[in-house]
Amino acid sequence: MKLVRYGAPGSEKPGLIDPDGTLRDLSGVIADVEGSTLGDAALDKLRDLNVTSLPAVDGDPRLGACVGSIGKFLCIGLNYSDHAAETGADIPEHPILFFKANSAIVGAYDDVVMPRGSTHTDWEVELGVVIGSEAKYVSEADALNHVAGYCVVNDVSERHFQTKLTGQWTKGKSCDTFGPTGPWLVTRDEVGDPQNLAMSLDVNGKRMQTGNTSTMIFTVAQIISHLSQLMTLHPGDVITTGTPPGVGMGMKPEPVYLKKGDVMELEIEGLGRQRQTVDQDA
Amino acid sequence: MKLVRYGAPGSEKPGLIDPDGTLRDLSGVIADVEGSTLGDAALDKLRDLNVTSLPAVDGDPRLGACVGSIGKFLCIGLNYSDHAAETGADIPEHPILFFKANSAIVGAYDDVVMPRGSTHTDWEVELGVVIGSEAKYVSEADALNHVAGYCVVNDVSERHFQTKLTGQWTKGKSCDTFGPTGPWLVTRDEVGDPQNLAMSLDVNGKRMQTGNTSTMIFTVAQIISHLSQLMTLHPGDVITTGTPPGVGMGMKPEPVYLKKGDVMELEIEGLGRQRQTVDQDA
Repeated sequence: MKLVRYGAPGSEKPGLIDPDGTLRDLSGVIADVEGSTLGDAALDKLRDLNVTSLPAVDGDPRLGACVGSIGKFLCIGLNYSDHAAETGADIPEHPILFFKANSAIVGAYDDVVMPRGSTHTDWEVELGVVIGSEAKYVSEADALNHVAGYCVVNDVSERHFQTKLTGQWTKGKSCDTFGPTGPWLVTRDEVGDPQNLAMSLDVNGKRMQTGNTSTMIFTVAQIISHLSQLMTLHPGDVITTGTPPGVGMGMKPEPVYLKKGDVMELEIEGLGRQRQTVDQDA
Repeated sequence: MKLVRYGAPGSEKPGLIDPDGTLRDLSGVIADVEGSTLGDAALDKLRDLNVTSLPAVDGDPRLGACVGSIGKFLCIGLNYSDHAAETGADIPEHPILFFKANSAIVGAYDDVVMPRGSTHTDWEVELGVVIGSEAKYVSEADALNHVAGYCVVNDVSERHFQTKLTGQWTKGKSCDTFGPTGPWLVTRDEVGDPQNLAMSLDVNGKRMQTGNTSTMIFTVAQIISHLSQLMTLHPGDVITTGTPPGVGMGMKPEPVYLKKGDVMELEIEGLGRQRQTVDQDA
């Protein structure tokens, strides 16, 4: 299934994209796509619906983030071996963890708005993992059973805020609109192996990032197992799992950063496309 | 006013502590103590209530965290000049920011449970700041007008997870139960100057931390103004503002860490006391 949330910011309704690509309304069935509707039993109930009986949605409404009420927005840093090689960074011994503010989350097609004074805003296409059931002290073997599904995340990053404002990456990761999430939450049964998904990101039509989740240093299962030793992962938490080569910070001979009017287009195999126009606060 | 949330975890009701120290039920007036009930107008409505007409609560119920549905749990590191001197750390140029997972939040008297294998769990008494109205690009002069009130936070920290699991402090700060918050949210009118509050923390009756918010490197107003340049602060967000000298990691000749059965008692002038017993996951 491809689950979505559609409508104006803050008042999104749940929906699904049917096999013909039609957006259908789920608000008569569930209140939202969020933690309580993401467990296996809840998803099975949705699978049992007669999709054609659900109301088709007219027009072309905005899509919000594909998960509502995200509790924790956990991010893994430096998790692609080819990206680590590109930057000359050491391979980390354990997954590097930081948080994005959940107030940064927006829809896949919403504008990305650089904060006042930002001159070092960068892109990062990433595989997002949506937790479906509580995970604490889980093994790698069991980890993927706690996943509801997957989505595209753009881990937008202000590199000056991230590295020059004294300590901890969070400052450059948490600006409003820096977490486009979606367009769809694709349930794990439809995705199959999360470690073999092609991914790409274009800026103004030029290919900047090309990668595949097969070069992750820590797999999705390893990440979930590791994080669950530290804290409980709750339904509706989202983990974004690092970015492949080609970020603006690493461009030669000079880094390249976003400017007002730029357009980012992101895609992960089977998970759909994002498209954001860049704006900046005056 | 001293606002509280009382009852079993996950089903707390709103209440207040009246001038005689009696817990009174607010659930006939507001649904919860959270973002939407923390603005100036909403708090003024509560101030206008005839307190003695509110039902007194029988018995001695558990107190939950004094704010519900906390969106962001923002933490400032290394923010006391005497603590920085003690550790030999440089004074940071800007406030150091990291996040605690909001799934770490518990009540002021709940157990603190060390994760499996944890041997380096430490304490940190801190002044918590509860945001009452949206703050974006606010000046230092205006910053405190966005504060609903203050509370005690114990920024419990696993030092091995924080520093030895490759990068970013969040790993050691986000374990379940590592964020006791409360007992009360004391509205800002009752607190007066947040930069002149005595604070202390005892372990098993022995004084470990003694400090005063007057030695903060960055004041509450400076922190709010700085963070608001990076991201919007929303009502119900909590900022915890760093710890004074005396953490276990800094003890001489050897660091001292918590063990099962230890009891922590924390106090900040005017904001009440916390008390936690330490347990550990098997």
